[in-house]
Amino acid sequence: MRVLIYVSYDGTSYSGWQKQNNAPSIEEELEKAIFDLFKEEIPVIGASRTDAGVHSAGSAAVFDVETRMPAEKIAFALNPRLPEDIRVVKSMEVRPDFHPRHIDTIKTYCYRIYLGRIMDPRFRLYMHQVHVPLDVGKMRAAAAYFVGEHDFKSFSSTATQVTDFVRTIYSLDVSEIKNGLEIRVTGNGFLYNMVRIIAGTLIDVGRGQIEVSSIPKIIEAKNREAAGPTAPAKGLALEEIRFLELE
Amino acid sequence: MRVLIYVSYDGTSYSGWQKQNNAPSIEEELEKAIFDLFKEEIPVIGASRTDAGVHSAGSAAVFDVETRMPAEKIAFALNPRLPEDIRVVKSMEVRPDFHPRHIDTIKTYCYRIYLGRIMDPRFRLYMHQVHVPLDVGKMRAAAAYFVGEHDFKSFSSTATQVTDFVRTIYSLDVSEIKNGLEIRVTGNGFLYNMVRIIAGTLIDVGRGQIEVSSIPKIIEAKNREAAGPTAPAKGLALEEIRFLELE
Repeated sequence: MRVLIYVSYDGTSYSGWQKQNNAPSIEEELEKAIFDLFKEEIPVIGASRTDAGVHSAGSAAVFDVETRMPAEKIAFALNPRLPEDIRVVKSMEVRPDFHPRHIDTIKTYCYRIYLGRIMDPRFRLYMHQVHVPLDVGKMRAAAAYFVGEHDFKSFSSTATQVTDFVRTIYSLDVSEIKNGLEIRVTGNGFLYNMVRIIAGTLIDVGRGQIEVSSIPKIIEAKNREAAGPTAPAKGLALEEIRFLELE
Repeated sequence: MRVLIYVSYDGTSYSGWQKQNNAPSIEEELEKAIFDLFKEEIPVIGASRTDAGVHSAGSAAVFDVETRMPAEKIAFALNPRLPEDIRVVKSMEVRPDFHPRHIDTIKTYCYRIYLGRIMDPRFRLYMHQVHVPLDVGKMRAAAAYFVGEHDFKSFSSTATQVTDFVRTIYSLDVSEIKNGLEIRVTGNGFLYNMVRIIAGTLIDVGRGQIEVSSIPKIIEAKNREAAGPTAPAKGLALEEIRFLELE
């Protein structure tokens, strides 16, 4: 059967989702735990490849296994075989050709900004510190321009093999939280580094380095150099992946 | 001059506040940073000695130094000399005989409980996971008995040299947060392990192992064995120390 797992992790100690030589990855740890459970080398197919240091409260992956264990129990059997900073939140059976990257999904990411001169050490691995005041009103006005279907080439790393840069953002909200700001974005798909570049651009708007009114021109430029910097990985977390056919 | 510093830290990697042989401590790291800044071995006097794994968003300590540097700038000079998981939040001059343990203070601690079957890895070092449902109404009713002046010997580790166990709790609140519960307690002083034993007792009330009505008898017993277990260190954070003479 094909098993879908939802996975949460603290990305601090990993080189990212994808397997790498000489660096620990989420994918490799999952495959090791699956091997330990089923005594079989089984590849996992991830829905989303997060970068080094990016966190997740809801990644997803599938793998195929013949077992009598009910699919729902597999999460609980995998967790004791995983490091403490990776947890399988849920497991379920899906159709044999369910491919998590080739079907309709809605993904939500959250980028967390710590405001204030001195970082609270408990948040240092999960928030990006900005040392200057940010104008939240301007950031919200800028965020509104991103919503809808656009060619987001200006907000994609140039290190990509993608040729179609059109994506739809359903919502992009900037909210004030206890120690700073949270940028929450939901869409049907995201380009490589897209959320981090949007966050970096909104931060530049908030500090007055990019005008709100120039956002449409930055989008139109379809040129990575037009947008702001890529905000650091540790502020980013994939919050949720929804598979429409499972709803 | 005598300098008062407020200190935040992630206690995960430390044996606690107090210096130990063969284990890193907050106190030692602060003294190393002070030595690096002033080229002088200067002892710090802490207001509160947290245990291994306990966090802090507002510990305090004093030390004496002759320097032309304004006291307010010392925080910023110390931070680059400290590990990332310790931060001096504020520094200020105080009277030469200001002793942070021998004057009136109001301390606030917070104990965080993660509810749910599978721990979100990002909270694993900062919350204590409880696997069973907790009755918050019962926990709140039990909490009310702690407020006021009491002999808290039942809620003190027996490994203590203290002889006077009378302390005043100003408030003890149980609130629901995103992934669980927060127990917040404010008082004029706390015995060794007192907040963790109160938390462990309230958890036992929440799960039905201790009756709400037995709390007064547990307090009256003045016997550590009457109370519930000591909840794990990682759920605890010292949130604030207020020195009344500075207000």
